[in-house]
Order: sequence, then C-alpha cells, then structure tokens
Amino acid sequence: MNNSPMMKQALLAYVDAFNAGDAERLLALFAEEATVEDPVGLEPKRGRAEFEQFFRYAISGGAKLELVAPPRASFSNHAAVTFIVHTEMEGRAVGIHVTDVMTFDENGKIVHMRAFWGQDDVRTADSPNA
Amino acid sequence: MNNSPMMKQALLAYVDAFNAGDAERLLALFAEEATVEDPVGLEPKRGRAEFEQFFRYAISGGAKLELVAPPRASFSNHAAVTFIVHTEMEGRAVGIHVTDVMTFDENGKIVHMRAFWGQDDVRTADSPNA
Repeated sequence: MNNSPMMKQALLAYVDAFNAGDAERLLALFAEEATVEDPVGLEPKRGRAEFEQFFRYAISGGAKLELVAPPRASFSNHAAVTFIVHTEMEGRAVGIHVTDVMTFDENGKIVHMRAFWGQDDVRTADSPNA
Repeated sequence: MNNSPMMKQALLAYVDAFNAGDAERLLALFAEEATVEDPVGLEPKRGRAEFEQFFRYAISGGAKLELVAPPRASFSNHAAVTFIVHTEMEGRAVGIHVTDVMTFDENGKIVHMRAFWGQDDVRTADSPNA
C-alpha cells in the first residue's frame, strides 16, 4: 500500500489548519496518544491533554506557517514537511526555520511529531543568513 | 553545548562533497558503524562497507543535490536538510525530492542518516506538481 498521498495530504492539512487558526481541525489529525517533540531535544508532549494545550497556545499566538518545499513521504509510515513559522518573540518578528517529521498510525492519524529546529533557526530580519 | 553550527556545517559539507563527486570527503563525515536509511522504509545500510558502496554508486552516477532550504538543527544531536536530487532514471531526467535527518555522535560524525522520500517524490519534468 502506498500511503504517500494520504500522508502528504495530512501534512498540508496540518499547515492549513494551523494557518486558519482552527485548533479542532488540527487536533483531529493526531491520534489521542500521540507524542509531540517540538523542538526535538526538549521534553516531549505525551498524549492529547499535553499536545492539545501546546497547539492551542501556539495557534492563539497568531503564528503562520510558510511552506518552503512540498512534503516528502517515504517507503514507510513517515513523512516530512519543511516550513518557516512567522511569529513574534519579545515584540520582534521572527522566522523559525523548521522541518517536521510525522509518523502515522494505521488509521492515518499522526502518532509522533518531531519538529527539527534549534536556537539558531530562530531568525530576525537582521539575522545573518535570515 | 550548542552543536547546531557544527551539525549544519556537516550537512552542507555532505551536499558539497556529493556535488564535487568526492566520495572520500563525504565518507569522512560518517562514523564507521553508521546506519543509512535511504529511503526510509527500505532495508538500511549498516556499517561502513555497506554505506560506502551505496554512496560510491550514488556519486558515480553524477547526481547533483540542490539545496531548497537552509539546514535545520534541534536541541539535541539531530539535524535536517531538504534538497532535490537531480539525476537520471531510465534515461529520463528526474528530481527526487528528499529531506534527510542526520544524527551525530559525540565526535560530530553522522551515525544515522534517514532520507525521507517516497515513490511519488521522484518527479519528471512533466509530472504533476513537478
């Protein structure tokens, strides 16, 4: 079975729902027991209660995701999407340069999200290499 | 310790070495016992003998990598890079749309490479969404 189209559709739906400020639509993409590592390397959010709070907060801040490349799939249940998060930190406009890798369960729900971005992937307009 | 600059430099060095056709320089970025999943979902290459053969073959075909976004790091030992592989398949020019996630050891060598791309990430000039 080739799940690629389904996974890519879910990644684009994630971006759309985020940008529409539609937390319900975004949360519906995730399995109840999903783990969300955002960013990878800090304590993961485990299970609906934790990641729901995280996403509602992120969306309420008015951040917008700008896709910078079409999603990539794989020959298994993982897919990747690369974007810039336009948001504010301490009153300044910043772009957070992110690649998400999502893992899907057999129902097409996201069970694991890993957001790759580090300290120096948060850039202001006057950053070097912004 | 913030390893982000080192990891990003290694990802860019990977792209440079590949495009220069310099297998030695590329292989020097990897730990001897590294695992290479390219693409994710097919049987991984485990250890130098296996991944060396894989990379020498890939490079000898004259494929070129086009970076489509700056590398992303994380708050741990993982970093991601997104590119298009320009190569030929069955006599036709194709672009393989890839995101690599690399994991680094304490010496700054790549110990795990996961290349996210699926069947429908291989595109010809006349593909829909090429």
